[in-house]
Amino acid sequence: MVCETEASLDSRLSGSPELTFARAAVFNKRELTKIGVTVALCVLAGVLSHTGGGAVVTFVSTAAALSMLASMVGSATEEIGARLPPGPTGVLQSALGGLPELFVCVFSLRAGLVKVVQAALIGSILANLLLVLGLAILVGGIKHGRQRFDSEAPRMIATLMMLAVTALVIPTLAFELHTAASTHEEALSAACAVLLLIVFAASIPFALRSDPERSARHGEPTAPLVPRPLPEAHAHTGWPLWLAITVLAVTAVGAGFVSEWFVEALEPAIAKLGFSEAFAGIVIVAIAGNAVENVVGIQLAAKNKPDYAMSTILNSALQISIGLVPVLVLLSFVLGGPVLTLVLPPLLIAALLLTTLTTAAIVNDGETIWLEGVALIGLYGIIAAAFWWG
Amino acid sequence: MVCETEASLDSRLSGSPELTFARAAVFNKRELTKIGVTVALCVLAGVLSHTGGGAVVTFVSTAAALSMLASMVGSATEEIGARLPPGPTGVLQSALGGLPELFVCVFSLRAGLVKVVQAALIGSILANLLLVLGLAILVGGIKHGRQRFDSEAPRMIATLMMLAVTALVIPTLAFELHTAASTHEEALSAACAVLLLIVFAASIPFALRSDPERSARHGEPTAPLVPRPLPEAHAHTGWPLWLAITVLAVTAVGAGFVSEWFVEALEPAIAKLGFSEAFAGIVIVAIAGNAVENVVGIQLAAKNKPDYAMSTILNSALQISIGLVPVLVLLSFVLGGPVLTLVLPPLLIAALLLTTLTTAAIVNDGETIWLEGVALIGLYGIIAAAFWWG
Amino acid sequence: MVCETEASLDSRLSGSPELTFARAAVFNKRELTKIGVTVALCVLAGVLSHTGGGAVVTFVSTAAALSMLASMVGSATEEIGARLPPGPTGVLQSALGGLPELFVCVFSLRAGLVKVVQAALIGSILANLLLVLGLAILVGGIKHGRQRFDSEAPRMIATLMMLAVTALVIPTLAFELHTAASTHEEALSAACAVLLLIVFAASIPFALRSDPERSARHGEPTAPLVPRPLPEAHAHTGWPLWLAITVLAVTAVGAGFVSEWFVEALEPAIAKLGFSEAFAGIVIVAIAGNAVENVVGIQLAAKNKPDYAMSTILNSALQISIGLVPVLVLLSFVLGGPVLTLVLPPLLIAALLLTTLTTAAIVNDGETIWLEGVALIGLYGIIAAAFWWG
Repeated sequence: MVCETEASLDSRLSGSPELTFARAAVFNKRELTKIGVTVALCVLAGVLSHTGGGAVVTFVSTAAALSMLASMVGSATEEIGARLPPGPTGVLQSALGGLPELFVCVFSLRAGLVKVVQAALIGSILANLLLVLGLAILVGGIKHGRQRFDSEAPRMIATLMMLAVTALVIPTLAFELHTAASTHEEALSAACAVLLLIVFAASIPFALRSDPERSARHGEPTAPLVPRPLPEAHAHTGWPLWLAITVLAVTAVGAGFVSEWFVEALEPAIAKLGFSEAFAGIVIVAIAGNAVENVVGIQLAAKNKPDYAMSTILNSALQISIGLVPVLVLLSFVLGGPVLTLVLPPLLIAALLLTTLTTAAIVNDGETIWLEGVALIGLYGIIAAAFWWG
Repeated sequence: MVCETEASLDSRLSGSPELTFARAAVFNKRELTKIGVTVALCVLAGVLSHTGGGAVVTFVSTAAALSMLASMVGSATEEIGARLPPGPTGVLQSALGGLPELFVCVFSLRAGLVKVVQAALIGSILANLLLVLGLAILVGGIKHGRQRFDSEAPRMIATLMMLAVTALVIPTLAFELHTAASTHEEALSAACAVLLLIVFAASIPFALRSDPERSARHGEPTAPLVPRPLPEAHAHTGWPLWLAITVLAVTAVGAGFVSEWFVEALEPAIAKLGFSEAFAGIVIVAIAGNAVENVVGIQLAAKNKPDYAMSTILNSALQISIGLVPVLVLLSFVLGGPVLTLVLPPLLIAALLLTTLTTAAIVNDGETIWLEGVALIGLYGIIAAAFWWG
Repeated sequence: MVCETEASLDSRLSGSPELTFARAAVFNKRELTKIGVTVALCVLAGVLSHTGGGAVVTFVSTAAALSMLASMVGSATEEIGARLPPGPTGVLQSALGGLPELFVCVFSLRAGLVKVVQAALIGSILANLLLVLGLAILVGGIKHGRQRFDSEAPRMIATLMMLAVTALVIPTLAFELHTAASTHEEALSAACAVLLLIVFAASIPFALRSDPERSARHGEPTAPLVPRPLPEAHAHTGWPLWLAITVLAVTAVGAGFVSEWFVEALEPAIAKLGFSEAFAGIVIVAIAGNAVENVVGIQLAAKNKPDYAMSTILNSALQISIGLVPVLVLLSFVLGGPVLTLVLPPLLIAALLLTTLTTAAIVNDGETIWLEGVALIGLYGIIAAAFWWG
């Protein structure tokens, strides 16, 4: 995020606190550009959505603004994380990284767009496991040939993903295959959500633990569940803590507003472009909500760190499954709108299950070739096509 | 089963045959307690079921008596096994261990409770692979941190389990997805049962073989399919063979009677407690029939023997799939009651398939953390809930 | 293919080009027998199918002639391959090996037998992954005990198989679970076919590459996707190139004629024998089209080369999935008959999915015992029975 020369300047200046303050007042050039673009897009999105601009233009500008805000949230989190040990940073990042998508889903729920939210959540998982993983494998494979990964982290995350997906799938199966259960749709969904949140809570100690000694005592290598930020990714730009927190707060509030405009623009745009609610959720909302965040996994694969790339991408999907989904299910009970149950369209469930199994197969065989990346991207396209025509 | 001091006394006395007889007449204190409790529960169960006590009380007491008898059958088998090499002992244990459950299922079939039997059989597999495996992973993980297992035995059993489940699933799929096959439900079920029994028969040589030389000749480690009893588990209490066989015969006959009372009490209890037949089978019968036996797997995990724990638990599930299920299907053709086909409720089949895939994922990644145990136990709860409301 | 003494003669004579020609004119004894049998069967098949012989006799003789022609195509390809590096030979073999089956499917499509073609294609995959793999594991296990395989090739092929099957399965799922998509059946099938062909095309570089240096540079062992012919399998019989090409051309044309007679005889034979079109496709056509080719995998297992056997058999299934199936789907759009969509009978899809998962489990656990072979063969029988009665 910082060009080399500035980073070295940083390290020389870091001793003198006054200078840190002086530098903090002026963001570096790249940061300024980013902030400028974000503010401009937010203003544009706000103007268009209040003046009733063209449905599609409004929708595109709100989506772009949302992506930029998601990226700003990420930068601010990273700055705060630079003061913390790697364990808590990872937890913080995964908690705050989902914020923009959480806002979009909450506003969509309040607007009664349950189908869009369901499709967007499962779509985010599919986009991670098919599109982003596929791109990472493709880019890594083209640059570095066969890529191997042997640490346990990706395999463990794939297993947890399998467990989470089994829980996500049961309410739909009970509803579709076992008619009598249909009246208990909400209770069963809530029970699954609670289980998923317990798993989420139980995973935090594994993520927080950055205690190589304890692992060594047990004769085990440290394999944290939430991948630690790489040292080089940690190039903190020297924002003081108050600035980082301010940026985080401002962008979070901004994300709240833009999310609302985005959701408002969604329905007219869908009507104009003529695709289904499910397609909008599974492709548009899923990609807009995760776009910037997802680039990291692909960059890691390009840098020939397949273990890290795999863990990061799979972990994104896992966090949605055991964090964002159950939180939204439970929130929907208190939001007053329609309840978000886990009884999902069967094709979505089938796609989720097949995708998880395929990912597990790829992770378990311990190496990837670019061909697999092509196949994964293609599968994402075919699933999107099935919903486009649906 | 024997307190330390008595065991050491045993070893000193084992030379003199008269003394062995003398000791045989008096069981040790712990054994006496166990026998007393079992006899008392059996008498209580008999009295309640013949005097028409409260439905629920009768049901609970027969269930408790049945659990104790299952445990006594296990002890007697172990005593007999102490005279045999480990291979045959394993086979004997898995053959006789399923006896009480076999009785319950036979009496249930004669009472026309086909749905209960189907649910109980699949429920026993689910209880093993979710509840017992989950508890073993949870207990092992809390006590010993990340547990690794690298021997091939668990992986091989998981593969065989996958093969068995595929065969178990086909009749239901043929019936649900392929309407024309419905008239051949019984023939297809019988064919699957025969295949499963052939696999069972073919697995006996692998279980019997305790021939490290042959393995060494092939440059392979011995990895028996049926896990051998651990040396320390073998603490034989010094019953002479005639006593062990007598205890086995008496408890087996007792299990026969109590099973009948248990099945008789089942329907009124279900009616009174208000849950479905499927729930009764999947939870109550499955747990009552396996409770004591299942504790062993959890104890092994607690002793930090994850390989052994995994093998024992997975093997229980496999024995039900390729032994108990096909035997009952074929028996049902001659029992005169309704035929037990393998066309099962679709939700049960889906749960079985998902559970097997999840177990395979856990076994294949080669290590477990307590978090996975929590997730497995939670899945069992959610599946039970789906049937509770069904 | 050549007896020992002739082979050694060959190697002494190989210096003098005139002699090569002289020998070419006379095939060796074994080859002559094979050619004679093939010609005789083809003539018989032609006579019977034009004189209107008994339906079943005509069908059996065309099936036998087709099997022999498939074997001759294989021999000729091997001869041509003897002049090429192993990479291109593998590609050539898998391209031409599917020729007879391609002809049968094309003629069946032109005769409107879409269901037979669908069943035959999926049936060929099932026959490879269950029957042939089962026989290979059984034979290998009986002869050599536990067989281990540790190279990455089988695992990578199993992963690609999983990816291919996911793509194959989506159109059916979209049609069955997502009613609105039904009108786009053909477009979705075409999209899946194009994806599968892209994967096929992308896999060719991996198959062609016989460049150990490049692999070494990356510190990776060479693990080609398409298994290379074994050195000993390469016993070229000394046909000059023109003869090999002539034999290939003649047998290919012959396969074209016999395929047509085979398809013509299929319907009356099905009517007479009284089994369903699906059963005919899944068992008869699938086995007749692959019988000879499949023996190779079993022979490799018998020679205690489980890695090679696994790769060869899995690769056959993969080539059908990503080569033959999409080619036929796209061809059906231009052939003028009914379109071959990928919306298949649900039971067929379920069987394909379960089989692929089971195969992945077997490949991933890294060793096989004969018991697994028995289970796989039995599964094939049960699936066939489900369609027999369907």
